[in-house]
Amino acid sequence: MKARRVAHGIGQPAVRKGYACCMSVPRVVIIGAGFGGLECAKKLAGRAVQVRIIDRNNYHLFTPLLYQVASSLLNPGDIARPVRAIFRGSGNVRFTQAEVVGVDLERQVVKTTDLPDIPYDFLVVAAGSTTNFFGMSAVAERALGLKDLSEALELRNHILRCLEAAATKAPDEAGPWLTFAIVGGGPTGVEYAGALSELVRILLPGEYPELAHQKIRILLLEGMDELLPPFPSGLGAKARLELQQKGVEVRTGVRVTSADDEGVQLSNGEFVATRTLIWSAGVRPADLATALDVGVSRSGRIEVDRFMRIRGQDGAFAIGDIASVPRGEKEIPMLSAPAMQEGRVVAENILRTVQGKPLRAFRYRDRGSMATVGKGVAVASIGPIQMAGFPGWIAWLAVHLYYIIGFRNRFVVLSGWAWNYLRSDRPVRIITRARGK
Amino acid sequence: MKARRVAHGIGQPAVRKGYACCMSVPRVVIIGAGFGGLECAKKLAGRAVQVRIIDRNNYHLFTPLLYQVASSLLNPGDIARPVRAIFRGSGNVRFTQAEVVGVDLERQVVKTTDLPDIPYDFLVVAAGSTTNFFGMSAVAERALGLKDLSEALELRNHILRCLEAAATKAPDEAGPWLTFAIVGGGPTGVEYAGALSELVRILLPGEYPELAHQKIRILLLEGMDELLPPFPSGLGAKARLELQQKGVEVRTGVRVTSADDEGVQLSNGEFVATRTLIWSAGVRPADLATALDVGVSRSGRIEVDRFMRIRGQDGAFAIGDIASVPRGEKEIPMLSAPAMQEGRVVAENILRTVQGKPLRAFRYRDRGSMATVGKGVAVASIGPIQMAGFPGWIAWLAVHLYYIIGFRNRFVVLSGWAWNYLRSDRPVRIITRARGK
Repeated sequence: MKARRVAHGIGQPAVRKGYACCMSVPRVVIIGAGFGGLECAKKLAGRAVQVRIIDRNNYHLFTPLLYQVASSLLNPGDIARPVRAIFRGSGNVRFTQAEVVGVDLERQVVKTTDLPDIPYDFLVVAAGSTTNFFGMSAVAERALGLKDLSEALELRNHILRCLEAAATKAPDEAGPWLTFAIVGGGPTGVEYAGALSELVRILLPGEYPELAHQKIRILLLEGMDELLPPFPSGLGAKARLELQQKGVEVRTGVRVTSADDEGVQLSNGEFVATRTLIWSAGVRPADLATALDVGVSRSGRIEVDRFMRIRGQDGAFAIGDIASVPRGEKEIPMLSAPAMQEGRVVAENILRTVQGKPLRAFRYRDRGSMATVGKGVAVASIGPIQMAGFPGWIAWLAVHLYYIIGFRNRFVVLSGWAWNYLRSDRPVRIITRARGK
Repeated sequence: MKARRVAHGIGQPAVRKGYACCMSVPRVVIIGAGFGGLECAKKLAGRAVQVRIIDRNNYHLFTPLLYQVASSLLNPGDIARPVRAIFRGSGNVRFTQAEVVGVDLERQVVKTTDLPDIPYDFLVVAAGSTTNFFGMSAVAERALGLKDLSEALELRNHILRCLEAAATKAPDEAGPWLTFAIVGGGPTGVEYAGALSELVRILLPGEYPELAHQKIRILLLEGMDELLPPFPSGLGAKARLELQQKGVEVRTGVRVTSADDEGVQLSNGEFVATRTLIWSAGVRPADLATALDVGVSRSGRIEVDRFMRIRGQDGAFAIGDIASVPRGEKEIPMLSAPAMQEGRVVAENILRTVQGKPLRAFRYRDRGSMATVGKGVAVASIGPIQMAGFPGWIAWLAVHLYYIIGFRNRFVVLSGWAWNYLRSDRPVRIITRARGK
């Protein structure tokens, strides 16, 4: 990296070591305000660098609770916090809302759809991942995702619209509106299946007397042999049991092969008549990975060295879902925990580069996995310990509350949960509409 | 009215008086789940009638706090409650989400866009009002409304987008993005001007250092000589003073005559360069008023007799904004309080008709008017008492908390306010987007 700028006014002698003298501090541009980018920016706040976070949305999203927005338990504002609010006290962290379309690694500028090129001295690519439909365009057209806030709101609205539509139909015609197919038995699919089951089975009979004698079907479809394939074995079987007790039809070893307006076709020959196809079967790195024209792994993630630098690029790093960090034969999974750990190491390595110190290698520490199956029920694996049921849920609750960003959100989310737990209510059952629709 | 149905199984002898014997209870259809329709349904809950509420949305909206959603203080779910949840315990109140396009008063059926005709024995038209642009289509195209939840969300998103856009522009180009023109000095305009002023002037300098030296302009434009024209005189002048102390430019005796992409043209010859035109200058009855083909007043509201029956229609009533109730030379204003009072009287008159009793005439009791100008400041007129500043705000707070429907919402709204009051925070500053945008 041809560093052209240096800190001034902060008075850390080490800052000046690696740099020729000039007037301004090194500019760090972070693409993406997800878990990785945000953690990196936090570690750089108050240090002798000038940080700019770019994101297409003006907020950081606490994605682990997205399924609760989609199941009417939480308001969107409960799990989203403006990036500017998070860095309100940090004079050296700025925010720009923009859609990044590429990076000129040679000229060291970030390209967006609308703004002039944004120059940088250090780059952190933390653009995350997007839904992977594996090339099935008929599925992509009809499926509802659960990967960002607008998808969660659209899913919530869709589920509620289906119930309203079913309430106006003759009993023998309502079936497809009361059948919900969730594809993908990972944490998102498992958690949403549990939450949706609670929404429709516990809550709605009291409010939809028209549907009292109707059969509501929730199907969770997983292509592998057991749920939660990336988790330690045993947890998937526990999750399956818990879900089945909630009335969810769990099918493993089955894939969706196509979809049309009437329903979805499964790989075992079965056709499921449904108006609702929820897709959580896979993610792939954000398109920016290929737009950069650097080396990518077989899964399309950007190849990095052990310091998290993009291969061949001294001042450009990649972290989180978009970065490929080998782990045995595989890669580190696309989860928030490694992204945050990588963000912290990259922040340190940027400061070390500025200071002329040797860089620190990244080493992933797996602190466990967990997924909640509904009110008071979760599965968790923390080190050698496996938990299920209520103890698992307490562990899940503690970890998630700890990580939710911003005290207000934590308070609101906690009181929402407490309220739900006491009353089995789902307060946010409103169908919002875009203007003019 | 040709009543063809009668109560059964409830065992009130009076019910049978006015009706020939048959097998089912009288069917009441209420069009609109606003303040009037909801109040009417509540009074009919548990009585010997079968009630169906029809609304295009699945929720009742607490419109007096809509401006707080549009100024990032409250989540949409805080002020909207599903109609089905409100009537969860009432076995005789059902809900249908549908867009009503007309009524066949002769055949006694309600017509919707998608569903088969819905028959009724008693009809309550409570379809409310809509924004009135007085035929200015250029204004209608560009103006943002503040009349329903989708408009409030759109307005919130728009304001936040303007601030983000201004942050990326050169100081001499940002002006139109930092100028906000609010048209209409009624309660909605006054309350939104105060809330917007707090949002941009108190909160944002800490988060938008790019805009620190920029001039932010909020204009409140009113065509009459003073703000709050329907309120007792004196309150308007008080509101003007409070708003001016918050930096709002209040202009009275001035109208918007046209609008284009660059700004708005005023009747005094001035052109205001702005990207934001917020319209709260007038409402008119919902289109259903004309679709019914019954007598309407000069303002287009449905003419009713003193029992709130649509003129010439024994079993069809109209209440709220869509109904014309004379009061001296004028009509009762389009406010929630008279709508609720009318809803209660109509519920009683429906039961009295069923029971063969004489009907009760409607008499409006004006319990006062109030509008809040911002944190801790409101103007109120209750009987002979006029209040301003903090005492007015306490009165405003007490009344609004009392009326908010549903305990959870009241708790959340109260804690949100308390939090805002303590921290000057606006937590819901997220720009939500429709899927795929």
